[in-house]
Amino acid sequence: MSARGQREFFTVRTVSEALTGFRPARRTGIETVGLDDALGRIPAEPLSAPDALPGFARATVDGFAVRAADTYGASEGLPSYLDVAGEVRMGAPPELEVRSGTAVAIATGAPLPAGADAVVKVEHTQAATPELLEILRPATPGEGMVRPDEDAVSGAELAPAGRSLRAQDLGMLAAAGLFEVAVHARPRVTVVSTGDELVPPDSPSLATGQVRDATAPALAALIHEAGGKPHFAGIVRDDREALTATLRTALPDSDVLVVSAGSSVGARDETAAAIASLGEPGIWCHGLAFRPGKPTLLADCGGVPVIGLPGNPRSALVVFRLIGMPIVRQVGGCTDPPPEPTVRACLERDLPSAAGRLDVVQVRLEGGEAVPLFGSSSLLSILTAADGYVIVPEAATGLAAGSEVEVTLYR
Amino acid sequence: MSARGQREFFTVRTVSEALTGFRPARRTGIETVGLDDALGRIPAEPLSAPDALPGFARATVDGFAVRAADTYGASEGLPSYLDVAGEVRMGAPPELEVRSGTAVAIATGAPLPAGADAVVKVEHTQAATPELLEILRPATPGEGMVRPDEDAVSGAELAPAGRSLRAQDLGMLAAAGLFEVAVHARPRVTVVSTGDELVPPDSPSLATGQVRDATAPALAALIHEAGGKPHFAGIVRDDREALTATLRTALPDSDVLVVSAGSSVGARDETAAAIASLGEPGIWCHGLAFRPGKPTLLADCGGVPVIGLPGNPRSALVVFRLIGMPIVRQVGGCTDPPPEPTVRACLERDLPSAAGRLDVVQVRLEGGEAVPLFGSSSLLSILTAADGYVIVPEAATGLAAGSEVEVTLYR
Repeated sequence: MSARGQREFFTVRTVSEALTGFRPARRTGIETVGLDDALGRIPAEPLSAPDALPGFARATVDGFAVRAADTYGASEGLPSYLDVAGEVRMGAPPELEVRSGTAVAIATGAPLPAGADAVVKVEHTQAATPELLEILRPATPGEGMVRPDEDAVSGAELAPAGRSLRAQDLGMLAAAGLFEVAVHARPRVTVVSTGDELVPPDSPSLATGQVRDATAPALAALIHEAGGKPHFAGIVRDDREALTATLRTALPDSDVLVVSAGSSVGARDETAAAIASLGEPGIWCHGLAFRPGKPTLLADCGGVPVIGLPGNPRSALVVFRLIGMPIVRQVGGCTDPPPEPTVRACLERDLPSAAGRLDVVQVRLEGGEAVPLFGSSSLLSILTAADGYVIVPEAATGLAAGSEVEVTLYR
Repeated sequence: MSARGQREFFTVRTVSEALTGFRPARRTGIETVGLDDALGRIPAEPLSAPDALPGFARATVDGFAVRAADTYGASEGLPSYLDVAGEVRMGAPPELEVRSGTAVAIATGAPLPAGADAVVKVEHTQAATPELLEILRPATPGEGMVRPDEDAVSGAELAPAGRSLRAQDLGMLAAAGLFEVAVHARPRVTVVSTGDELVPPDSPSLATGQVRDATAPALAALIHEAGGKPHFAGIVRDDREALTATLRTALPDSDVLVVSAGSSVGARDETAAAIASLGEPGIWCHGLAFRPGKPTLLADCGGVPVIGLPGNPRSALVVFRLIGMPIVRQVGGCTDPPPEPTVRACLERDLPSAAGRLDVVQVRLEGGEAVPLFGSSSLLSILTAADGYVIVPEAATGLAAGSEVEVTLYR
């Protein structure tokens, strides 16, 4: 093996190995947030109902609270007759009682008066006189109402730990009076960009050879989508000492550390050396059997997951979506990641691959066809033109034109 | 027709009619945001590249910049010999020139020196002496490099109007130096809750008959997901004058106005009357052929879309997801809504429906089966227990057990 070969990739793993084998134990701490800020946050423990919900028997139709037994056998031809004893007020404890032979008017959502065990819909009644009601159909006990604990029994789990809170979960927590919830803190994800050619995105003009740092702002967006809090530590030159100093400073304040590496082999070597010096147990893999994304480095440095991304912006973003976002989610306590939008489509042309390597191919959807987009992995335009991507799995040596593929859609 | 029937629903429309026919013209204004805040925002106009990208010819491999013609016919047995004239520095204008018979060392990402039209990979070369290079394979012009405008020509569209900005779009905008973008302002969506039974979610204890307002916090989350800015105008008693006063105050500051109505028929009548008094052209429909969600009111009051939701929290959230979120997106300038995650599953039991009515049925996924969850539409627990929902379309009279259905997943 040549010196270059040895230097380039010591340990190459598959993407599956990385997803199942690289499992840092780090988890963020717990913080309390109000319901207004809880959308998408991850409960640290299951959230339980302090009391039964709705807490009282409640009408689910507009009509009359009755004793069901008083209505047995009622029909249009031979109605049951009940005395109307009054009306339940909405939002207040009912003062009336339903005795045998009486009914109380009630609106949807109002509390059932004592003695009643059913609500007859107004459509199934008829007023004989203002005080006398005809019941035209029999009611069964429990009809037209919900029980005091039908939405939740006391102590019931309202939302599980590890899954992000959805709109309806917030509604349920509000109903239960849990207006503050204990959730995992958002992982602080530090991004360090390296590369002598990089300048900040707000640089108005460029010298030949300079490029604006496109990867860091896009990574910040993906970190945000994964529930993390991005922090940008700046652009470092391709210099091992400078990079090591920046990483050492960033490490103690990071839950995850991401190095958007220089694009040359030399720059990658510097990055690997700098990361290797950060702490034990150190580098887990120097490369992935992954296109585009071979030069991906994963490490655990003193309990902080460190991700060294390929230098090409497109490769970096593809790798971060597949490998980095699951790590950020995991560190943030998410055990049940949200589903991704997908669509099935017919592959427009052959996609050759190599067995043992996972390929991520960007595609455009055109009339039910998935059209692969090819080009240098330095081109971001391939990603911006894509509607989604197709994965050629490790076991496959390619996908044939015309085969049905699943496209994961960007949103 | 009975007095009640007349009062309850004047104009009932189908969900399809509502989605295609109720198209308020209102659009939010334009504001400028930094790239850090641009994720998910909607460009008001297409965003174009001010200059070509990357702006200079760039190596995409580590190797040697050459004149391709100098390598024609090269092979391992009969290499081409080139003089190494030096090395290109990363990130700076190249000072060297590639003349016929010479090569210049270059790293991935560095600018091509004048005279070169290809980059030979280092793996396809061999050093005869430090100054003399053997080329082992011929290069074609353009190989191992990208053109100065290969990522974007000057003026190229980097992101379309009307679609939310994705991570890779932010990367592309950063590359182009567009660190501020003109986007539609987030629609301000005012939520008014009505109901004598409602108390705020932070009420520590409840009297019998009182319930906490669960709908407003859940609506706020859905408004946020649709790109809007929720504003909660408070809980109003079921009183036409009080409601009218609150709505009149809210209207001028709202891009969309949402009334989470009381649950009884009487409360709905008050809401309809209050909305009808707000402005022209007024109420578009008093009800939808939709389960759960029949008592849904849509109106255009002086150019502000107004949505009257059913009183039951579950119905309100289902309606807002299907009807309200598209309206918020539309007002916010989104013409290309993000895809929803879906999965195909086998329906566990029959779902009866009525032709002409659209049913939204909450389901749990259990081993590839979609298990419908039934219960009173007053129960939020049906929504929190669901993994997603199945739509029984208007044309269908139901779906048979065992049929394949598409489940839209919550995330």
